[in-house]
Amino acid sequence: MPTYKAPVEDVMFLWNDVFGIDRHANLPGFSDASPDVVSAILEESAKYCEEVLTPLNRIGDKQGCARAPDGAVTTPDGFKEAFKQFVEGGWIGVSAPAEFGGLGLPIVVTQIVNEFLCSANMSFAMYPGLTQGAIAALIAHGTPEQKALYLPKMIAGEWTGTMNLTEPHCGTDLGLLRTKAAKQPDGSYKITGTKIFISAGEHDLAENIVHLVLARIEGAPEGTKGISLFVVPKMLPNADGSPGARNAVVCGSLEEKMGIHGNSTCVMNYDGATGWLLGEENRGLPAMFTMMNEARLGVGVQGLALSEVAYQNAAAYAKERLQGRALGGAKFKDKPADPIIVHPDVRRTLMTIRSFNEAARALVMWTALASDLHHRSEDDKTRQAADDHMGLLTPVIKGVFTDLGFANTVMAQQMFGGHGYIAEHGMEQFVRDARITMLYEGANGIQALDLVGRKLPKDGGRALQAFFAEVQGFIKDQAADDGMKVYVEPLGKAIGHLQAATMWFMQNALAKPENAGAGSTDYMHLFGLVALGYMWAKMAAAARAKLKAGANGSADRMNAKLVTGRFFMERVLPETQAQLARIQSGAASTMELKAEQF
Amino acid sequence: MPTYKAPVEDVMFLWNDVFGIDRHANLPGFSDASPDVVSAILEESAKYCEEVLTPLNRIGDKQGCARAPDGAVTTPDGFKEAFKQFVEGGWIGVSAPAEFGGLGLPIVVTQIVNEFLCSANMSFAMYPGLTQGAIAALIAHGTPEQKALYLPKMIAGEWTGTMNLTEPHCGTDLGLLRTKAAKQPDGSYKITGTKIFISAGEHDLAENIVHLVLARIEGAPEGTKGISLFVVPKMLPNADGSPGARNAVVCGSLEEKMGIHGNSTCVMNYDGATGWLLGEENRGLPAMFTMMNEARLGVGVQGLALSEVAYQNAAAYAKERLQGRALGGAKFKDKPADPIIVHPDVRRTLMTIRSFNEAARALVMWTALASDLHHRSEDDKTRQAADDHMGLLTPVIKGVFTDLGFANTVMAQQMFGGHGYIAEHGMEQFVRDARITMLYEGANGIQALDLVGRKLPKDGGRALQAFFAEVQGFIKDQAADDGMKVYVEPLGKAIGHLQAATMWFMQNALAKPENAGAGSTDYMHLFGLVALGYMWAKMAAAARAKLKAGANGSADRMNAKLVTGRFFMERVLPETQAQLARIQSGAASTMELKAEQF
Repeated sequence: MPTYKAPVEDVMFLWNDVFGIDRHANLPGFSDASPDVVSAILEESAKYCEEVLTPLNRIGDKQGCARAPDGAVTTPDGFKEAFKQFVEGGWIGVSAPAEFGGLGLPIVVTQIVNEFLCSANMSFAMYPGLTQGAIAALIAHGTPEQKALYLPKMIAGEWTGTMNLTEPHCGTDLGLLRTKAAKQPDGSYKITGTKIFISAGEHDLAENIVHLVLARIEGAPEGTKGISLFVVPKMLPNADGSPGARNAVVCGSLEEKMGIHGNSTCVMNYDGATGWLLGEENRGLPAMFTMMNEARLGVGVQGLALSEVAYQNAAAYAKERLQGRALGGAKFKDKPADPIIVHPDVRRTLMTIRSFNEAARALVMWTALASDLHHRSEDDKTRQAADDHMGLLTPVIKGVFTDLGFANTVMAQQMFGGHGYIAEHGMEQFVRDARITMLYEGANGIQALDLVGRKLPKDGGRALQAFFAEVQGFIKDQAADDGMKVYVEPLGKAIGHLQAATMWFMQNALAKPENAGAGSTDYMHLFGLVALGYMWAKMAAAARAKLKAGANGSADRMNAKLVTGRFFMERVLPETQAQLARIQSGAASTMELKAEQF
Repeated sequence: MPTYKAPVEDVMFLWNDVFGIDRHANLPGFSDASPDVVSAILEESAKYCEEVLTPLNRIGDKQGCARAPDGAVTTPDGFKEAFKQFVEGGWIGVSAPAEFGGLGLPIVVTQIVNEFLCSANMSFAMYPGLTQGAIAALIAHGTPEQKALYLPKMIAGEWTGTMNLTEPHCGTDLGLLRTKAAKQPDGSYKITGTKIFISAGEHDLAENIVHLVLARIEGAPEGTKGISLFVVPKMLPNADGSPGARNAVVCGSLEEKMGIHGNSTCVMNYDGATGWLLGEENRGLPAMFTMMNEARLGVGVQGLALSEVAYQNAAAYAKERLQGRALGGAKFKDKPADPIIVHPDVRRTLMTIRSFNEAARALVMWTALASDLHHRSEDDKTRQAADDHMGLLTPVIKGVFTDLGFANTVMAQQMFGGHGYIAEHGMEQFVRDARITMLYEGANGIQALDLVGRKLPKDGGRALQAFFAEVQGFIKDQAADDGMKVYVEPLGKAIGHLQAATMWFMQNALAKPENAGAGSTDYMHLFGLVALGYMWAKMAAAARAKLKAGANGSADRMNAKLVTGRFFMERVLPETQAQLARIQSGAASTMELKAEQF
């Protein structure tokens, strides 16, 4: 059975040495987030994740959720108690406003905790995760009455939340959606339609479930401009805020799916259910999009989380499993065979995964910090730059972290040989669970298109220029330091490839957008590697500074950082040249066949 | 529910136009394999696969196998009837010797049929597949009495076969195995021990199961040199050859695994079971290795097979699913949205998969043909060259086709968006089924090591030199044809990368074998891309010749070949430069961390 240890020390290195987050102590919430406080919070979260959630992960996979004939859904054994503990710990509202019962801490803390939760038990983590998303939507778009009614309950974990977008015939293209909303004399709406793939749509963890539902008001325009957002609680709140009568929304069935069995993925049937408009009429889609960046960043974090826990278990197995001898002759002559970690190909695999994990964690923190600055800074320029950063990096993190996160779970499983295929080791569950992250919250092809078609050209390319300037500024700053050459030279080459690819799009995709479309996924991954490479260069600089300053007991960890960063530069980053070549080959052979020839 | 159409026309193009297999009509078996006969056989096999096996695939996944308390195993609904039809069709013995009831046709025919079978239902195909492996072992190592006793029954499908190698503590490193064989006065042996991961170890498809078991005779040397191979039938044959008393071998449990649920993967307990030596004492491992090439080629075919069926279903869905609009504006204005095949990123994905499938099929046929020449040619030089080819290409095909085959099933699943994650579409089953191919019959890291450590240096690099000479000869032959430039120029560049990588190993890995180990997987994939690129160049030349000659109704297909080949050169082959860069970075950063730092 898999084990998990939350990487608290690694996070604190990023917090203190790489990003120096306490320089933002003047911002709301950050003053309460001193390194000591953050470290204590993370240790507490780690303990809960390691001891409570990790052991429930395989149980959840094996049992799944069960639906009764009346539509009630039971979660796997232990989930209810674990959720109770989670709620009592105040974890749902870590970054929620204090006025509604939250702790008001930076979003960066929430994203770190989310990584731990998803490593330990992704199916479980999705229940509070979706609630956090619904809370954000209510904060952004709710009336004061709606906020007062829903937020305290949801932040306290008494009520949970969901997002209802997808219908059987439409997911990516929500303009096609058919769920209807009929206005009632009292200002409420009757919602009728079927939604699918509703995570946490029905369960037994909380007394009420607050569904946020996209629907079309009768008479509204067709397409995306006629979609509104509604709050549709499972139990209609009484005047005193307690849950009252059952609303006409029911779980019609549970999806039989590849993984995340511990999470209830529901078909939700709305049969004239009572709902209330959230935000403006016909502005439902933009309202959802305001939460998109954080939701997508959260899915990227899931990719990292599964890569991390898969790595930990693969590394432990590789140190333990005796099989064959080292290439240069036996390393452990007293044992019947050497542990497989002596083999270069095993190490190559493990190094590939960890060189992603550590840089990905840095990129999440950097980007979550941007989200905080965007929400909390009082400086217009800072807010705008932070928003630019979020907008640009979000599709990259969602698309690249989930593609690579999944690939990494597969590589980690491979370390177990045939045993990796057997359920009891838990490695195949990580693969199955990770697979969903590439599909939901916008399939990764959509992320690539969002990056290339929307985020690159936005505001005259301002966000991209700022990113280039930051990375190149860093490279320049390090030029004098010979010890940094092994990091900044490959990074310089890689960002050169990214610039060349950008230029190629500018020259070739305006007249023929297919040239951008055909190269979009490669571009997204090229961008991801450059961003991860930049994180490695920053971490290497911080590790070197720390070693120079005496390292304070962490010399071994810092040296490992320097080695892992070199591995990334030598073994992962070279991919950028192939990505550029593919992009520059254009769309001709991709588009030439007639549809019927496929 | 997924559908499947066997690519018979594509195979016949390879058979006739690319490889001109009828030029071998002078060899035993080939004279019976005229294009008309082969085409008729393949059409018959296609019908069976499409109509009988395909509909059973999801049933098999859902039901799995069931074990009764006495160890008896029931296969999923319909498997028994389908197996009966399979046996009646004479499919097990397509390439088996006529003297024991086989058809004696070339192995290339069997490998093609295996592709169809595995596309339709891989779990099912493994039952006869393992029987074919056991038949090959008995042909190679059995006494005349053993052959007479077992082969007719097995070729007729009355008895099936298994391979028992792995034990809980050893898979790759069989030198550690502990199963014991105690010699009896009558010349038989009592076999005692536990074997795991035994595919088709117990089932209800046949009246008897012939286990081939690796065990150590009491007093034999430790390690790999003390291992012998035994025949251990489930039912001890009577004097007349009918199945008699139950032997002391029983299925202890079924493994709970990620996929191939329709195949029974058994823990087999041998409790003093009666067995007979197959081949020489202590020569069990070399005896198994003589069948290794064909078994590994067969697993490579499984990777291709799943990639093919996943492609077909993804292409069909992409032509059908309406979502969004083409980048340049609506293509189907009368529909509420365009089918997603209008999107460059969808096409890029489909083209990536099909450009692998078509070239992979060619490489399988070329290599299976080498196996035939090795077994059937009377010319020493031809036999040796064919054996060299088999030895060199087998690890490449096993490792690369299963890595890419799996990756392709994931890409095909991605085309379905969230629906790809739901069981009823069957796409996630292809992913789960494909995953085993990277693990069994030698995990892919072992294939890479076999290629780099054993096959490259063998006989002074003779096999590799012959491969280089053939590809470069072809490139030279095509130099005068301008229309072939788009194929042979990228191929020339890629083989240059392969040669540079080989040279780098020669210069850097003799003193430090870790430099080869750390680059072995990249080298295997680099080799695979070059070999697939060569197949594309050959197919392009054949397609061009056919078009020049009037194409005979297949102009559309031939043009599609030319486009798909170009796509491969532009979009897949550029990876070789990144592979070379990774190889040339050496092992330093890979090997530097201490084991406890992982």
